Amino acid sequence: MHRLKEDLTELGRFGRSPSKRVERCDQLDSRKGLNRLAGSEENRKARNYVVHRMKQAGLEVKIDKTGNIFARRPGLRTNQGTVMSGSHLDTVKNGGMFDGSVGVLGALEAVRRMKDEGFENQRPVEVVVFTAEEGSAFGQTLLGSSALTGKIKLAEALSIKSDEGVTVGEALENIGYKGEFERSLDDVEYFVEMHIEQGPFLDREKVPVGIVENISGLTWIIARIEGEENHAGTTSMQMRKDALVAASDIVSLINRRANEMAEKLGNSARGTVGKLNVYPNGINIIPGKVEMGIDIRDIVQENMLSLKDEILKAMKALEDKYGVKTTVSLSLTHLPVHLSDDVVKVIESSCKQVQANAKRMNSGAAHDAQNMAGKVKTGMIFVPSFKGISHSPLEWTEWQDIEKGVRVLTQTLKNLSSL
Amino acid sequence: MHRLKEDLTELGRFGRSPSKRVERCDQLDSRKGLNRLAGSEENRKARNYVVHRMKQAGLEVKIDKTGNIFARRPGLRTNQGTVMSGSHLDTVKNGGMFDGSVGVLGALEAVRRMKDEGFENQRPVEVVVFTAEEGSAFGQTLLGSSALTGKIKLAEALSIKSDEGVTVGEALENIGYKGEFERSLDDVEYFVEMHIEQGPFLDREKVPVGIVENISGLTWIIARIEGEENHAGTTSMQMRKDALVAASDIVSLINRRANEMAEKLGNSARGTVGKLNVYPNGINIIPGKVEMGIDIRDIVQENMLSLKDEILKAMKALEDKYGVKTTVSLSLTHLPVHLSDDVVKVIESSCKQVQANAKRMNSGAAHDAQNMAGKVKTGMIFVPSFKGISHSPLEWTEWQDIEKGVRVLTQTLKNLSSL
Repeated sequence: MHRLKEDLTELGRFGRSPSKRVERCDQLDSRKGLNRLAGSEENRKARNYVVHRMKQAGLEVKIDKTGNIFARRPGLRTNQGTVMSGSHLDTVKNGGMFDGSVGVLGALEAVRRMKDEGFENQRPVEVVVFTAEEGSAFGQTLLGSSALTGKIKLAEALSIKSDEGVTVGEALENIGYKGEFERSLDDVEYFVEMHIEQGPFLDREKVPVGIVENISGLTWIIARIEGEENHAGTTSMQMRKDALVAASDIVSLINRRANEMAEKLGNSARGTVGKLNVYPNGINIIPGKVEMGIDIRDIVQENMLSLKDEILKAMKALEDKYGVKTTVSLSLTHLPVHLSDDVVKVIESSCKQVQANAKRMNSGAAHDAQNMAGKVKTGMIFVPSFKGISHSPLEWTEWQDIEKGVRVLTQTLKNLSSL
Repeated sequence: MHRLKEDLTELGRFGRSPSKRVERCDQLDSRKGLNRLAGSEENRKARNYVVHRMKQAGLEVKIDKTGNIFARRPGLRTNQGTVMSGSHLDTVKNGGMFDGSVGVLGALEAVRRMKDEGFENQRPVEVVVFTAEEGSAFGQTLLGSSALTGKIKLAEALSIKSDEGVTVGEALENIGYKGEFERSLDDVEYFVEMHIEQGPFLDREKVPVGIVENISGLTWIIARIEGEENHAGTTSMQMRKDALVAASDIVSLINRRANEMAEKLGNSARGTVGKLNVYPNGINIIPGKVEMGIDIRDIVQENMLSLKDEILKAMKALEDKYGVKTTVSLSLTHLPVHLSDDVVKVIESSCKQVQANAKRMNSGAAHDAQNMAGKVKTGMIFVPSFKGISHSPLEWTEWQDIEKGVRVLTQTLKNLSSL
């Protein structure tokens, strides 16, 4: 464990200002999160650190054209499909030290343990780092795994721009991670991602390991309402076209309907207006325009899509009710994904082998695993998030839970490599 | 009229970028408003222009300690109380060329016409420019008239800071308008302010002149809601403390109640959430904090205060309903003001004398006149705002309406000076 804790602690310094070591929960500071956005200088340093550790472990490292990193340990049976495991190294703005990192360094640790124990893997085992899992730098989540699995074309992936107008391709060039490797998934059989839960259930129930069965689908709606900017004192109530009053109807509707669906249909519905900007945003000016970012999720595809449709209909209905104009665009849709039952069973038996208490569960957050699941047999292992906090400097997972997770991951990779 | 139009057009160049002349409505550009915030370099240029024109008209100019400008034409009866008239030269951000300016240059024009006609005023007549009528630079509206009328103390007024941390006193020093004059209102009998309506009623009814009877009261509430920032995918609906969902209740409540009050109680109620900021404002993050700027107005004091109380109560009730914390502060309160019936009657008879069609009305916007009304007999003359637009680069008043207004103002000042 000492080695993995050391790696996570050192990696947790990149992107933190000042870059101090945090080894205990009580050393966290809500103002001092990690800023290690995809393509940034800090992202480069973190990648360099991990690549260095991969090479020290004797792995062969290759970089593909979207900057995904692959570190391979050959297997005895070279003609058998590879077992892959990994996650991402980029963070959101002001994020935490475990999201993504625990899956990359956990997979590396698993391979190091195989080597230390003299375990001979039959199938090749590869540790993978996906580029830009978070949408914080380029607005698009799961970028590297989308390119790897062919969900988006290479040229398209490389041309996506950040808010500052830098493309993914340029950013990768800048940090020295625009590789030439072309990784086909034809020779890959399994993928397992270890990740923090980012939700409160494992922590609340004191269960150290979650075995993921489904990953929630996700739809992002960008909604705009244009009303009429006007003087708050001289414009009578009945003459107004207040964009914020109209937007508030939508915020309330989404919350009410998602609550009703969660109650009736098994608690997997989620509806959130996370982003809302008012223009011109002056206390004495009737809002002329509102932009909203809406996040809709469900494990059940039809429920997710029906809530989305209901919102689009309600947006349209604002036009008659308030005399405003509305536009909506769907900026992102991931359908819900059911993970491999075979892999779930292997993880479950691995838990028993290493005597780790575990439970089956769903993931409300999106992960690279959901892209991989479309191409290879895929599973996920969750470790607890303290109070369910993530995407925050206060993100924390106890070291003994990470150790439990890594034991389960190591055993799972061993078992899969022997299948 | 040529002289006043020339003055308004030239003054309208200060703070506009590029500083081009706008003489017709179709030359307005919504991206090229006036930025002439109180205490700015552009505000200095506008003051210099007006002071120069005042001196050309033979008036004696004095500057007081909060930068208010007084330009005096002595009367035949020096022991009789002065008739004052004027408004302000500062603008909001990206504002228009008539708000305030029309009242300053209109009063100057009235005095010039008296002089041209050889009219001998009995009482002294003074043109006044108030400092920082808009709250855009220093967050406090009606600053100069508040200091002049003793509503706030001189030291307090001078120590108010802008967002950039510059005090009113420092800003006035910087632009050379921190004077030494101490203007008592003991020898002032009347005040008349000409202003654009900033509302749609005169324009809609094609009436060139409004005679103001009441100025709406105004309360600004700064409301903060603290919930719990969390992941939009992994946090189940019933575990949330979503600050924006709570805020939307308030936005809807204010709109519904102000509409009901306006319907039942004579259409003078106004309730607006003009400003709303969400933190951290990410599409996939449950809002942890919302700050709102709420604007409540009414001609009827008890209605305004009861709507305010209702909002404070509803804010408190959010705590139980959503598990959030709330804080409110009242950043500004002006009580409704009834203007002088005597002056209203003089303006009304002046309208008849110059054959201007006019109507009595109320003001939904705040004006320096409401401060003056606490000390001297005060009236207001409105001219139409095209489509009710103001605080906007598209603010417009037809030249013939300005001419009607100035004729009424000139006649009113003549009549008052002879009383």
